[in-house]
Amino acid sequence: MKILITSGGTSEKIDQVRSITNHASGNLGKMITELFLQNGHQVTLVTTKAAVKPQKQDGLTLKIVSDVASLQATLEPLVKTHQVLIHSMAVSDYTPIYMTDLAELQAARDVNQLLKKSNQEAKISSAADTQVLFLKKTPKIISLVKKWNPTIRLVGFKLLVDVPKEELFSVARDSLKRNQAEFIIANDLTNINDRQHIAYMVDESTEELAHTKAEIAQKIYERVIAHD
Amino acid sequence: MKILITSGGTSEKIDQVRSITNHASGNLGKMITELFLQNGHQVTLVTTKAAVKPQKQDGLTLKIVSDVASLQATLEPLVKTHQVLIHSMAVSDYTPIYMTDLAELQAARDVNQLLKKSNQEAKISSAADTQVLFLKKTPKIISLVKKWNPTIRLVGFKLLVDVPKEELFSVARDSLKRNQAEFIIANDLTNINDRQHIAYMVDESTEELAHTKAEIAQKIYERVIAHD
Repeated sequence: MKILITSGGTSEKIDQVRSITNHASGNLGKMITELFLQNGHQVTLVTTKAAVKPQKQDGLTLKIVSDVASLQATLEPLVKTHQVLIHSMAVSDYTPIYMTDLAELQAARDVNQLLKKSNQEAKISSAADTQVLFLKKTPKIISLVKKWNPTIRLVGFKLLVDVPKEELFSVARDSLKRNQAEFIIANDLTNINDRQHIAYMVDESTEELAHTKAEIAQKIYERVIAHD
Repeated sequence: MKILITSGGTSEKIDQVRSITNHASGNLGKMITELFLQNGHQVTLVTTKAAVKPQKQDGLTLKIVSDVASLQATLEPLVKTHQVLIHSMAVSDYTPIYMTDLAELQAARDVNQLLKKSNQEAKISSAADTQVLFLKKTPKIISLVKKWNPTIRLVGFKLLVDVPKEELFSVARDSLKRNQAEFIIANDLTNINDRQHIAYMVDESTEELAHTKAEIAQKIYERVIAHD
């Protein structure tokens, strides 16, 4: 099979030296990639410069992206030519519009006017004691996948922080339906550390538990293969 | 000699999954560290999880920091027990105070009231189309070094983006005087790529040019040794 995997976390530039970054090591995406490669599948891994990556090997194609715009541009043609997308990348929700100091905000009659501005300087001045950064929503990449290729099989991820299990499952099932995914890996940051990574494979009616990244990778692999 | 080196870039958390990050690979700090180690000096390298690091070896102590607060807490006792600080780390200028949506900003009578708030949720909601992030200045770590230890020798760094050479030198000399540094490595991001790293060792009266990270490391080493 031709498997498309995303891993790592995107970064949205504030200026040439600062970014807003979503944290993700890339470790889980690396393990999933290696498992499919070991079993003779072709994998295209879309990841970031900072993420941990598998070694170069036959069957593996690496694509490096930085922000949501480059992810979208890279992913669209790939989604059309692969059978499965395992979308483990932590994608930025917001991207910077304009950064200014408190004085400009206080002087503004209408805040909406500031949203039409953008920073011309390559490195924003660090003179002011307080800065205000306006951000806008990025496109939801996972919601575009089935529009690009209605027949691709989609495995989604949902990371929440410190919520009851019922809420985690409910949010995962919302994503499952809205994005027409086959299943969603639902996890809570408070249950992830160096020794464990608690996650649930959530579909319409079941929630299968995994305890480690290796176990998550194995269960994803088995589900993808079983339904082939 | 006991040499203290900082490398990499700090990250300031917005919430449990997002940060504002200053980009820095850690490559130059690694080269400087290796050069001092090869010549029999003791090095303490204060760096970040994401930065490139030298291999574990005799004479090297590694300290991992994340944000400006952890950098400050880690650096203060080390500055008091080392003879030289080579401060190549890209340190965040600002740290998040409070993130909210446009509606709360528009409803606020006095923006200053919002600066007293903080986010209680572990992952800030991504429902709103536009978000507003308030940031405050972090303490200038380089300005504290001589207060912590008036006899430590200080090598500073100044990175600007796309400015005339005269402005780069002038800003570097301001930093040299204000922070009582021995010299400042002044560089412009537009002159840094995979093949070259143009930088100037700026002191009161001279600007010595280097073309690569290896050459910068060598020139720093020679200057530190020469004045010992």
